Amino acid sequence: MHLRVNLGRNVVVDDMPMEIVERKGKGHPDTLCDGAAEELSRMLCLFYREHTGRILHHNVDKCVLAGGRSSPQLGGGAIEEPIYVLLVGRATLEWRGSQNEIWRVPIGKMVLQGIQNWFQRQLPNLPIPGALMVDYRIKRGSEDLIANYDMGCDVPRANDTSLAVAFAPLSVTEQLVKEAEMFLNSPALRVELPAIGEDIKVMGVRTGRRIRLTIAAAFIDRYVRSVREYYELKEVVKEKLKQHLCENCLIKFPVEYEVEIELNTADEGDTIYITVTGTSAECGDDGQVGRGNRINGLITPYRPMSLEAAAGKNPVSHVGKIYQVMAQLIANRLVEAQPQLRQVYCYMVSQIGHPITDPQAVNIEYYGDVSETEMRQLASSVVEQVLSQWREIQDGFVEGLWGVSYPGMAVACQAELAKKAV
Amino acid sequence: MHLRVNLGRNVVVDDMPMEIVERKGKGHPDTLCDGAAEELSRMLCLFYREHTGRILHHNVDKCVLAGGRSSPQLGGGAIEEPIYVLLVGRATLEWRGSQNEIWRVPIGKMVLQGIQNWFQRQLPNLPIPGALMVDYRIKRGSEDLIANYDMGCDVPRANDTSLAVAFAPLSVTEQLVKEAEMFLNSPALRVELPAIGEDIKVMGVRTGRRIRLTIAAAFIDRYVRSVREYYELKEVVKEKLKQHLCENCLIKFPVEYEVEIELNTADEGDTIYITVTGTSAECGDDGQVGRGNRINGLITPYRPMSLEAAAGKNPVSHVGKIYQVMAQLIANRLVEAQPQLRQVYCYMVSQIGHPITDPQAVNIEYYGDVSETEMRQLASSVVEQVLSQWREIQDGFVEGLWGVSYPGMAVACQAELAKKAV
Amino acid sequence: MHLRVNLGRNVVVDDMPMEIVERKGKGHPDTLCDGAAEELSRMLCLFYREHTGRILHHNVDKCVLAGGRSSPQLGGGAIEEPIYVLLVGRATLEWRGSQNEIWRVPIGKMVLQGIQNWFQRQLPNLPIPGALMVDYRIKRGSEDLIANYDMGCDVPRANDTSLAVAFAPLSVTEQLVKEAEMFLNSPALRVELPAIGEDIKVMGVRTGRRIRLTIAAAFIDRYVRSVREYYELKEVVKEKLKQHLCENCLIKFPVEYEVEIELNTADEGDTIYITVTGTSAECGDDGQVGRGNRINGLITPYRPMSLEAAAGKNPVSHVGKIYQVMAQLIANRLVEAQPQLRQVYCYMVSQIGHPITDPQAVNIEYYGDVSETEMRQLASSVVEQVLSQWREIQDGFVEGLWGVSYPGMAVACQAELAKKAV
Amino acid sequence: MHLRVNLGRNVVVDDMPMEIVERKGKGHPDTLCDGAAEELSRMLCLFYREHTGRILHHNVDKCVLAGGRSSPQLGGGAIEEPIYVLLVGRATLEWRGSQNEIWRVPIGKMVLQGIQNWFQRQLPNLPIPGALMVDYRIKRGSEDLIANYDMGCDVPRANDTSLAVAFAPLSVTEQLVKEAEMFLNSPALRVELPAIGEDIKVMGVRTGRRIRLTIAAAFIDRYVRSVREYYELKEVVKEKLKQHLCENCLIKFPVEYEVEIELNTADEGDTIYITVTGTSAECGDDGQVGRGNRINGLITPYRPMSLEAAAGKNPVSHVGKIYQVMAQLIANRLVEAQPQLRQVYCYMVSQIGHPITDPQAVNIEYYGDVSETEMRQLASSVVEQVLSQWREIQDGFVEGLWGVSYPGMAVACQAELAKKAV
Repeated sequence: MHLRVNLGRNVVVDDMPMEIVERKGKGHPDTLCDGAAEELSRMLCLFYREHTGRILHHNVDKCVLAGGRSSPQLGGGAIEEPIYVLLVGRATLEWRGSQNEIWRVPIGKMVLQGIQNWFQRQLPNLPIPGALMVDYRIKRGSEDLIANYDMGCDVPRANDTSLAVAFAPLSVTEQLVKEAEMFLNSPALRVELPAIGEDIKVMGVRTGRRIRLTIAAAFIDRYVRSVREYYELKEVVKEKLKQHLCENCLIKFPVEYEVEIELNTADEGDTIYITVTGTSAECGDDGQVGRGNRINGLITPYRPMSLEAAAGKNPVSHVGKIYQVMAQLIANRLVEAQPQLRQVYCYMVSQIGHPITDPQAVNIEYYGDVSETEMRQLASSVVEQVLSQWREIQDGFVEGLWGVSYPGMAVACQAELAKKAV
Repeated sequence: MHLRVNLGRNVVVDDMPMEIVERKGKGHPDTLCDGAAEELSRMLCLFYREHTGRILHHNVDKCVLAGGRSSPQLGGGAIEEPIYVLLVGRATLEWRGSQNEIWRVPIGKMVLQGIQNWFQRQLPNLPIPGALMVDYRIKRGSEDLIANYDMGCDVPRANDTSLAVAFAPLSVTEQLVKEAEMFLNSPALRVELPAIGEDIKVMGVRTGRRIRLTIAAAFIDRYVRSVREYYELKEVVKEKLKQHLCENCLIKFPVEYEVEIELNTADEGDTIYITVTGTSAECGDDGQVGRGNRINGLITPYRPMSLEAAAGKNPVSHVGKIYQVMAQLIANRLVEAQPQLRQVYCYMVSQIGHPITDPQAVNIEYYGDVSETEMRQLASSVVEQVLSQWREIQDGFVEGLWGVSYPGMAVACQAELAKKAV
Repeated sequence: MHLRVNLGRNVVVDDMPMEIVERKGKGHPDTLCDGAAEELSRMLCLFYREHTGRILHHNVDKCVLAGGRSSPQLGGGAIEEPIYVLLVGRATLEWRGSQNEIWRVPIGKMVLQGIQNWFQRQLPNLPIPGALMVDYRIKRGSEDLIANYDMGCDVPRANDTSLAVAFAPLSVTEQLVKEAEMFLNSPALRVELPAIGEDIKVMGVRTGRRIRLTIAAAFIDRYVRSVREYYELKEVVKEKLKQHLCENCLIKFPVEYEVEIELNTADEGDTIYITVTGTSAECGDDGQVGRGNRINGLITPYRPMSLEAAAGKNPVSHVGKIYQVMAQLIANRLVEAQPQLRQVYCYMVSQIGHPITDPQAVNIEYYGDVSETEMRQLASSVVEQVLSQWREIQDGFVEGLWGVSYPGMAVACQAELAKKAV
Repeated sequence: MHLRVNLGRNVVVDDMPMEIVERKGKGHPDTLCDGAAEELSRMLCLFYREHTGRILHHNVDKCVLAGGRSSPQLGGGAIEEPIYVLLVGRATLEWRGSQNEIWRVPIGKMVLQGIQNWFQRQLPNLPIPGALMVDYRIKRGSEDLIANYDMGCDVPRANDTSLAVAFAPLSVTEQLVKEAEMFLNSPALRVELPAIGEDIKVMGVRTGRRIRLTIAAAFIDRYVRSVREYYELKEVVKEKLKQHLCENCLIKFPVEYEVEIELNTADEGDTIYITVTGTSAECGDDGQVGRGNRINGLITPYRPMSLEAAAGKNPVSHVGKIYQVMAQLIANRLVEAQPQLRQVYCYMVSQIGHPITDPQAVNIEYYGDVSETEMRQLASSVVEQVLSQWREIQDGFVEGLWGVSYPGMAVACQAELAKKAV
């Protein structure tokens, strides 16, 4: 492995003149696709482990959602055509056990029951059955892929040459965008304001010290009795969000930053954003895996990003998934260990066919008043530590610890891993 | 209308040297398809009536079931791939109300929720969600069909030229076949013997006075602990069935007829007929509408039969459905009114575009010691009576009174209609 | 085998007071489904034979067609949504060859290419690709079925207990109905009158000596320039048909029978029956296997009929298919051999698990001035002959000789078989 | 509009210590999905324009490809199961014309015929019909979206708030990666070496002055007779590619850069990369829209990127598509106009509901020895020019000029636009 550590020469993102950050919330069609694919991967992992003690080959990282058709109405409307979700991918569906008995994956049940249940947990207002049709085209993988996967060696081999990139910490705008969506989708707020649906998209645009959060949030029609109540509710939501962001001192605004919150800006008179189920997928919005948040829970076009979709990939050999978490853990631990660091990027490049613990290159770019010698030492130790924890990281995927699809990895995750790693 | 009444010149079926009768039971794939199509028609009727006061045009008489994949196992096996059901047809999906408001049929919910629930009621051991995927291709009808349908006249017009044929009473073999399946699928027996699944097919072959009932009945794996228990259960089932048929004096056998019961004759050693869910549709058996029982609940190749599938057709103008019930009611009432009748056939031919109360021809062929004059008089009055009850008959479809798909029309139905008609 | 021969006591169909006969033509949605299923079975047979020397297990006798959407227009309209065809069934999709190499059926190509090509041949005016989507759910069969099928014995074993019934000769009405459709769908007439589409349904209703042929024939819009031309074309078609039926002396009408021809009776003013493609499947009409013609090419509710769909079943062990042809051949040969026979019915009952050459029962009911002794002798020899030709009959299915789906078995077929059998 | 121009403070990409660039070639499953979606959008645009003079609302930017199943074999293998492609999105499917007549989009034909034809052009070795099944779920859009879209104003309004980012010129590594794939997929080379399939993926990893191109290219089995020939062909391909890159002096290597080419590195003995059709989609590889190249034809994780998928979106109001091309044109023109510029980034942020010619912000970051004053002037004029050409840019989409899905926008495009704009 080639480790390169260098001092960044660009400006820190917080100091850039402009910044745009987006987060597709829990009920957004793209987030739902990511989540469904990841859930299927997790169910497969659990099934494989239970029956063979290890995770067999799979890659179910494609999913498309075709929106349904509905007629929302104040007081409660109707769903006319269901949301259609098609899961696509490859998996080991059949194998011989030690007694030569044949094992078969109950893939139909996993998808129809498991994924429907998962959707129900994400969207409690979605009437199931009735508003969702889940379908699948999961075939067995090509023999080559599988052969390559299961080489019987200790450390799994990378399935591909690919690049992962991560950074820490989040910028002020990034924190705000993430926190805003998580607050609006928090169980506590839902109890108080059941009218807010799960499909919440937050876009943060920072110009200098001015941050504008533009939020699109689907309201649920049966909890809104009139247009007037809708507009009143919007004010309540904005007020509560503002208060939450202040109270939690996420940032010292409004001292340092001027924050403006806009909610459902396309509303105009009677044209308001209400839905039957809390998601725009019910009518008009389609989705796909890999088109939404990166694994940190954000879309950050001003930062380097990987296009790889982590969701649905196997957590054993698919470096397009594993390295994204590893890189994030490295970045997180570096900024935690050295408070002088203002910003850290971690790039990891895999080497197809080599053990996943032996990347082709790891590149650390840091910003802050730290000497390169010290940084090199620190990075070396952190990188080694994270690579050596590949088993715990794999477990973390199976347990859903990393928030691959939603809510996204956070610094907090380190604590979890530390506990596991002890 | 042209009414022709004539004395039959053939032998009565009971006196024929040979007879073959079949009944596809409650959980047979073809019966399930018939039932699902009919259930969808009934849901549409109820929706239309509730919102417009009348039944709008539809014809959902096509449905295919592609069997799933399972691995049954003594003590309890698994479903690997779900049963796939595709409902196909035409319906009025959208219309303008009196206030010019648009009404839309929640067709997605009807199919996904309504049909799934219906399946669950038919097959309590089918894990839903998990073992069933319901899909649909219900389009709006062609404008011509709809225009023709709704002519604003009092009595609806026949949608086609078609023939219906019915007979009464059931022959001894027919009664036995029908009763055998209904007993094996009765709630009481199920409580006692939960191992019997719903997919029961009975074939009765009579040669002279010897009747052999060959029954194929799917057992449910988790209620059977061993091969030995399976064979013991088979004996119990046969014994109970024999006793039931005797006790209910359906026929005075074994005095007049020698009845033999065979159950799951393809069993051989360890190769036994067990399923996870109680239906062969879980693995290997496909189904379609119109390939199973006629509306009397039987397949009787020695008798004239209509190929028309009643299930799923609209009960307003579709004479392929309505006339089958009307013909059966006529035959039933004739044999009830005149005990000398040994056998009656009723043929009805519709006239496209004419009121359904004005058939092109009704032909009564009777067997028994009754004069043609008397018979003509009786037939004339019965036919007139039944035709005049078209409204009640329509209601009967909506209420599921006629057993279009399962269990099939019986003489008993007359009582019901009589009550309604008062 | 139990052979029973008896003199029929009913009246011959031609002498009955009334008769109704139907034929669904080449382009009718139900006929198309039958044909597609049978074509797939034939393609499978050829593939199996080529690669293994024998026909492996399959049963692809389910198919549903969901009509498309079109806007026909004088001079040429458009297809908006395609016809959707779903083929459902079981087949051997994979096996090991003698060198332990794996053989796989290119099922995708068979269906997508083979069935599309077949549709194109049936419906030359159907724009493919563009107006047809062919899909499939062909799974491998359950192990039990396959095991039962391939018992390594010489004569295949019957897969089920089932009944087949056939009769000969055709009645006058039956001949007329069949001939009418075949003439209207003949290549010669098509050259002359390209405006006639393939979706032609003929219903013949005979009352006494009066036969009314009610024909529904889809016209093709781009060959019809005006409503007036349409009505003129209708007259030409009727005239040509009448002439054809006379000239071919099919029956000595108008001497003996008064024949009336009606074409597209639902036409009214501008509401005429035109289509873009020549089939009603393009808009509004759905179809299924087994809902149309029996293997003699007709639907004859006044005659005993089997509900079994022959189309798509394997021609090796599926007696629901094989016995229908055998019974027809027996009936055909009997009437050919003994000119005194006015009418013959042949019933065949199979015996599950027994060689197909050993039916449970064969029942011949004959009408005509022939002694029972002579008839018994004749029947015995004919039945034996037909059963012994099981190999040639199997070949006949593979070669498409029997017209299982369309045009239907005819007496003429005997000549073919005789040639093969020499 | 807010235009900000600032001198970049980072290092130019060519000077960074490391760089990773990827290009998914013509026949890669993700590229195929992008292309199919974009082709459908173009067909819709042409249809709308022809019938209404303008482009109606649509958004068909979702597509999933589920790989088929094949058994490649030296000398020629077979396809067993087809590639399945599902197009998902929204479109205006029906509207009233000026005479109140109803217009309907022949969406079925567009998809089944248009998209199949398109696939055939991309993959000449794909047997169609036979190896491809194209399906669609294109519904009409929600009324709100459509209303918003068609405001009757001159300049269309932005449908969303979104960010586009572009840069120019390409780095050396980027040029190499792009050129390598285009050469390998060039018609000329295909004539010479028909064994090379269309599914070619190129990854370029630069470390210092060392560039390693790792290429995965599907070979076509029937053009390769032996394993030995395969390895020989690989050497020929590498040699030709090296020569091409040198001869075209794309870069002055091997003087300045050391370039290494690796082809199909996963080969090992008999395990070689052959396919029946030239794409891995035939067996094992799935795809989606938006997971492949950005509109410049590359994936560049070291550069800012937009996650927006341009393919399939409407070119009228969807800024997620339009601004990506505008930003690229701006960057291209700037580097063309001022040779001192070493690198330019252009960020554009739209303003939902505002004319697309009035972005919320345009941010130009430049590298090179140019004064901010000069640069501001230049940028101002170029940005204004590009925004004013919105009509021509729209036309460019309809004509397929921008290479949205493949091969990707290049500097050369400017010339084209210039010609149009005259």
